[in-house]
Order: sequence, then C-alpha cells, then structure tokens
Amino acid sequence: MLKRSFVRWVNQLSPVQLIFVFYFIAVLFATALLVLPVAHQDSADPAFIDIVFTAVSALSVTGLSTVTLPEVFSTTGITMLAVILQLGGVGVMAVGTFIWVIIGKKIGIRERRLIVADQNQTTFSGIVQLVKEILLVIVVIEFIGFLILGTYFLQYFPTVKEAYFQGFFGAISATTNGGFDITGQSLIPFKHDYFVQFINMLLIVFGAIGYPVLIELKAFLFSRRDPSDKSFKFTLFTKVTSLTFLALVFIGTVIILLLDSKDFFADKSWHETFFYALFQSVTTRSGGLSTLDVSQLTEPNQLFMSALMFIGGSPSSAGGGIRTTTFALAMLFIFTYARGKSRVRLFNREVYNDDLMKAVTVMLMAFIFVLGSTIIISIVEPFDLTKILFEVTSAFGTVGLSLGITGKLTMFSKIVLMILMFIGRVGILTFLLIFKDNKTTGNYRYPKEKIIIG
Amino acid sequence: MLKRSFVRWVNQLSPVQLIFVFYFIAVLFATALLVLPVAHQDSADPAFIDIVFTAVSALSVTGLSTVTLPEVFSTTGITMLAVILQLGGVGVMAVGTFIWVIIGKKIGIRERRLIVADQNQTTFSGIVQLVKEILLVIVVIEFIGFLILGTYFLQYFPTVKEAYFQGFFGAISATTNGGFDITGQSLIPFKHDYFVQFINMLLIVFGAIGYPVLIELKAFLFSRRDPSDKSFKFTLFTKVTSLTFLALVFIGTVIILLLDSKDFFADKSWHETFFYALFQSVTTRSGGLSTLDVSQLTEPNQLFMSALMFIGGSPSSAGGGIRTTTFALAMLFIFTYARGKSRVRLFNREVYNDDLMKAVTVMLMAFIFVLGSTIIISIVEPFDLTKILFEVTSAFGTVGLSLGITGKLTMFSKIVLMILMFIGRVGILTFLLIFKDNKTTGNYRYPKEKIIIG
Ligand SMILES: [K+]
Ligand SMILES: [K+]
Repeated sequence: MLKRSFVRWVNQLSPVQLIFVFYFIAVLFATALLVLPVAHQDSADPAFIDIVFTAVSALSVTGLSTVTLPEVFSTTGITMLAVILQLGGVGVMAVGTFIWVIIGKKIGIRERRLIVADQNQTTFSGIVQLVKEILLVIVVIEFIGFLILGTYFLQYFPTVKEAYFQGFFGAISATTNGGFDITGQSLIPFKHDYFVQFINMLLIVFGAIGYPVLIELKAFLFSRRDPSDKSFKFTLFTKVTSLTFLALVFIGTVIILLLDSKDFFADKSWHETFFYALFQSVTTRSGGLSTLDVSQLTEPNQLFMSALMFIGGSPSSAGGGIRTTTFALAMLFIFTYARGKSRVRLFNREVYNDDLMKAVTVMLMAFIFVLGSTIIISIVEPFDLTKILFEVTSAFGTVGLSLGITGKLTMFSKIVLMILMFIGRVGILTFLLIFKDNKTTGNYRYPKEKIIIG
Repeated sequence: MLKRSFVRWVNQLSPVQLIFVFYFIAVLFATALLVLPVAHQDSADPAFIDIVFTAVSALSVTGLSTVTLPEVFSTTGITMLAVILQLGGVGVMAVGTFIWVIIGKKIGIRERRLIVADQNQTTFSGIVQLVKEILLVIVVIEFIGFLILGTYFLQYFPTVKEAYFQGFFGAISATTNGGFDITGQSLIPFKHDYFVQFINMLLIVFGAIGYPVLIELKAFLFSRRDPSDKSFKFTLFTKVTSLTFLALVFIGTVIILLLDSKDFFADKSWHETFFYALFQSVTTRSGGLSTLDVSQLTEPNQLFMSALMFIGGSPSSAGGGIRTTTFALAMLFIFTYARGKSRVRLFNREVYNDDLMKAVTVMLMAFIFVLGSTIIISIVEPFDLTKILFEVTSAFGTVGLSLGITGKLTMFSKIVLMILMFIGRVGILTFLLIFKDNKTTGNYRYPKEKIIIG
C-alpha cells in the first residue's frame, strides 16, 4: 500500500525531478556510509554538517572539504569515499540505469529519458549502450592510472600496500575529477615530480573532456578496420568542446604564469614555473588537485583562476561550471552580434540559434547565482571578497581548489556551497527544469509591443 | 579639398560610428574648456589626465572625480562644468540636432537615424519634435529646481549670489544625474535637511526615469482636453520602466536599511535611517549625490549598492548601466525559461522574443565588461576587490558614488574607468554597433548541427 503510493508519486515526477530525488537519495546513502564509526579515525569526532558536506562534495566530485580527510577518515572511510566519487563521477543516474540493466529490467522510454537529461544527450538512441561504454571507458582509464601510479609510488611509500592504496585513491580522485587527496596537502608533496603531475593531468583531462569525446575517440581509434576509410567524422560537439578545452588550458597556463611571474614564480626555474602554471590551468577545468598552495598566488591570479573555474569542464563530463561549450557559444554569439550578424558558423556547420540563446542564458544565470551567493556569504562571513568568490566559483565549477576558508565557514555558508556544488554538477539548465511547470499554456496570444533595451 | 574628404569620411560612417565621433569631439571640446587657466583656482595645478577624466565624467554625467572640484575649479570652471553636464545629460546628439534645427538645416533621414540610435528610439517619426520636447522638459524641471533650491539655500549661505549659484549647480547636477558637488562633500552637509534631500531625489528621478516617460506624462497631464476621455494609454515601455524603477527604489531602500541596521544605522533615529536608506537607494539609479560617506557602510552593503549601480537608470534617460528595462526583461525571461514557457506577457501585451534576447545578451556582456575591468584594475592597484568593484560599477552605471579611491588610481585605471563611463552612457548595444560590419553576408547557409549546452 505504502509502496504503491510511493510508486505513484515517483511516476508523476518529471525526469529532472526524478534526478533530484535520486541525487537526494544518493546523498542520504553517502552520508549514512560516512557517518559510521568504522569510517572514522579513532581520535576523530567530525561534526554532522562536515560529514554531509563531504558526502555532497564527493557526489558532485567537487573535492572541497571542511576537514583534512586523512585526519578524520580511516582507510575504510577513504575506500567508501572512493566508491562515492566513482558514483558521482559516472553520474548517479548512469549507475542507476546500469544496475537496472544488470538486474534484467528492460529499459523503458521513461528510464531512458532520465539518463538523457543527466548526461545532456540530445537523442534517445543507444542510451543504454552509452552508459555501458561510459563505465567501461572510465574503469579502464582508472585501472591503467592505478597500475602506473601505484607502481611508481613504490619508491615513495614504505609498504607495497600503501603505495597501491595511494595509487588506487589517486587514480579515482583524478579521473573522476574528485580532487580529494589523502596526503593532507593535495599533490604538493609531488611538486618536483613531473611524472606524477603528468599522469594526474592526463587522468583529469580524461575525466573533464566529456564522455562523448572519449567514446568518439574510442570509436575513431578502435572501430576503423580499414585505415584508408576516411569517412569517420567527429561531431561538431566534439570539435567545439575539445578545441575550447585546449584553448582554455593554453591561455590559462600563459596568464597564470604571467600574473605571478614577479611573485610566486620569481625564484623558480623555467621548468618548475611551466609545470606549476600548466597544472593549475588544467586543474581549474574541474580537477581540483593542486601542486601549490593557491593562497600563495597573487590576488589577481586567484581572481583569474575563479574565472577559469566558473567556466569549468565539458558537458557530459565529470566536471561542473557553465561548461566549455556554453562559454564558447556565448562568446561566439557576442562577437557575431557585435558585428551585426545573426548566424554563427563553426567547422562548416551552422549553429542552431536556440543553442546560442541557451548558452547566453546559462552564462547569465550562472553569473547571477555565483555573484548572488558571494554577496550573501559575505554578509555572514568576515573573509575577503576574493576568498569568498574563489570558494564559490570552486564549488559551482565542482573544482575543489580552496584558499583555505571552507573549514572555517558557518553552517549557513556550507549549505550555500552544497547547493552550488549540486547546481554546478547537474548543470544550470537541468537544475532549472526542476521548477518546470507541466501544465500547458493557453493558445491565446496577446498583441506584441516593442520595449527599448539598454 | 580637406573639407570635402572629411565630409566623405563622415558620410561613410554608420550612425553609431558618427555618435562615437561626436562624443570624441565633445570630450575634446570639454577638455579644451576645462584646461583653460581661467577655469582653475589660482592655487590649483591639476594634472592633464584629471582634467580629461573630469571632462569624460561630466559628459557621461557620471560624477566620479579624481580631484575635489571646489579646490581645483574656479566659479568660471564650475559654470563650464554645468554646461558640459547639460550637454551630456540631454545627450550630445540631441543637442547637435537641436543646433541643426536652429540654424535651419533640414533634418534628413541620416541625421534622424543618428538621434534614433542615441536616444534608443524605435521609430523615426517625430524625432525632431522629441528632441525639442526633451530639452524643454529638462530645462523647465531644472529651472523650477533652481528657484526652489536657490531660495531655500538663502538660509545656508552668506550672500544671495552664492545661494543661487549653489541652487543653479545643484539643480543641474541633480536633474542631469551629473552627481558632481561643489560643497566638497556631496550632500552630507544637508544630512539632516530632509527638504533639500526630497527636492534632490525628485530631480534625480526626473533625470533617470527616462525622457519618453516624462514626455508621456506631460502628454497625459496637459494634452487631455476632455477629462472623460479615457483613451490615453501609456506605452508598455513606460509601464515596464516606471514599475521597475519604483520596485528597485523600494527594494533598494529596504535592503540598504537592513544591511547596516546594526552598523551605520545602529545609533540613528528611524527617520534619519529611512531618509539615509531611501536617498542612497534613489541615488544608485544613477544620481551619484550622497547624504553619507559610502565607505562607512558595511562591505555587504557596498556590494549590494554595486549591484544596484550595475542596473543603473532607465533607457533614454540621463542614466547609465544595463538599464531598468534590460534588467526587468532579463529577469522575466529567466523565470519564464525556468518554468519551461516561451512567451513573456506584461500588462496584456506579449514581449518580442528579440527584445528578450537583447536584454539577456546586454546583461551578460555587462557582467563580462564589469568583472573583466575589475580583474584588470586589481592587477595594477593595491586596493580591496570590493572597493575596485564599487568604482567600476559606479563608472559603468554612470552613478558617480565612490569609496574614495578614484583619485589614487594609476593613469591606466583612470582610462579604464573613462571607457566604462562611455560604454555605460551610450549603452552596450549602441557601443557594440560601433564594430558592426557593414558588408552583407553571403546567402549560402551551412547545415545546422546541435551542440550540448551546460
Ligand atoms: K573536482
Ligand atoms: K551620475
């Protein structure tokens, strides 16, 4: 009886509202795991809000933390965290569907639409296949990362077990773009080890560049039997998102390097400076791991990195923020508009006006959310505006870099950050659909009248 | 020969490019006036950049100042400043056309289009009439303000001449939303004189609510011969802009009051608090005069006022910023979009989708300009981010409130602020049209392809 009314309640929800419910259940589940005494160090007694914060941060693969993980969580707790990261990285919905597939339930149109919204896919076909492929690709990447890092770490850690455990957690944290660390100081211990940095950057990029790109890349590399067959075409989406991703990494590296050239990088060699700047640029795409203490950079650099984090990763990836394609299309639209033209062309394709308008709207709303949250948090917190803005964009971009104030915030601000991590992870468009009015509007139209703008 | 090639050069410019040229000439003219020794106090020796800054600030009716006016400028200089404010307030273009009309030149389609762009009017009809009406309305309001303030000031100033000179400059500075003061500390000397404050608020509102509103109001009040004739209808534009203006003043007052209730307002009586909050709310619409030292308010309040200044005044007014209608339509669009609907209805009229998209685009671009300028200025200046953001939004909104750092800025930052004042005054849409490509685009269209957004 109770079960039937629950089923009826679920059935009347829209797909996006269902996603919200699923995320909520996932947060409950993750919190229930992390609150267990077996998950904690004997000496630790974490506050409940900090456990919830860790759960939300892990599920949204943000990596912001109000506590120092290895001080609070036991090896069991950290293993649980790795599982939660994996769940968040691949997408709660994708995992849910995969379980459905395994237990033999036929995937109906309703469940497919669920995944469609969560992964931002525009067609229904092959959704189940897609989820399988996502999981496969991610697990293969993680496993290779685990083997490389674990083996390499044998020189750093006293026991084989500890080296491979570090490799296990590190590979998952980097690939899912979780950004959590169990060293207690992110990748700073490896600030001179360019190999560890290179592997981590590679794993972060795999997680943040978007699953569709990975799957197209896989198809390109392995599906083409005949090498003379030139018919394979990357989609416009893959071209746009990859190019924007690379451009952001490149421009980010150069500007981060310049903004601290007379400060943090003043006494560093050219290769140290280059790797520091490159890693920080890559990590703002949504990785969140860091090879330096961001609070030691100049304030303009912190602001610039806030802007990078605001943009975030690619759509349908483990990243957050407004997404690379949104940024690219919004910028293209503005430049086109300024030149008085109406059509945007990319790689011999015309972009739908509807997509351009979506991009502009998403970016505007993101500004309002992020700046609004910054002002609201500044009312209750004593910290500098730059610091608050940095934590807010880090949460919205699900990046997880921090100027060190997250743990000192009031419960109110922690809740605001949790909401931002959720919005950043599911994306603003999906988030807004939660409020969608299902009733159809009347067909009667009022006369139109022009209004002067700006 | 030289003259002919100049005429040819002018003729090939687009209307908006011409506006840019006209503004540039106006800045040259204003600077040439203010650089004259007769304009200065004997003891003063202002730097050239500060004179240019004052000229740009006056022409854009912003009121930001790098110097204390009465210390630097003589009575002659201040009278020149009043003339420049008047020129800027009514619009350089409107004045230009009026002069054309006076010297008997027939207003052709080309000149009409010029005014159309400067005053953001959507139809060509009655443009000349409009400019005449604008000038008439403004001068009448200013003259009444001058009589009231000058007469009332007799109790404050030792001579009749000084009282009426203060009234003259005060009325022009308030009505044109210039926001300059010759008291050396804005309206703080009148912080307990609610009558002076009330008159100033009234004049500021007249200048910032938009000329079309004033002219419709004039038509409503004086043109209706038959009192039983109910056929007069305010345009949708007037309804939207007036309602938004009033809503912003109301919400602004309440929040400014709340954000300092335990700080600046803690030891003030209820009527002092109310007038302080109300005046500061009104002045952020683009007035720029102030009854208190804004730097004494809490940081969240300064941020909130930055947001208000970012919005600015009504279109086709003496105000700047993104404009009230832009803000209203962008917010309406977002809420409509979030509810999954596509049409926006207001007062039994449907708003054009094109106008909604313009509003969203303008607001997004304004965020990029303002935040970009803030980050760039923060690279060269040692001041707090909040202070820089405040001066930047004050310049963009052509408001003129200051946390006191404008005079301490480097030349680079002063130039950035001057550009922002120009963009804020002409409006982002007009500004962008400067870059418009006149060449027509080819008719060949590429195939369309969807891209995943956000
Ligand atoms: K992250
Ligand atoms: K002003």
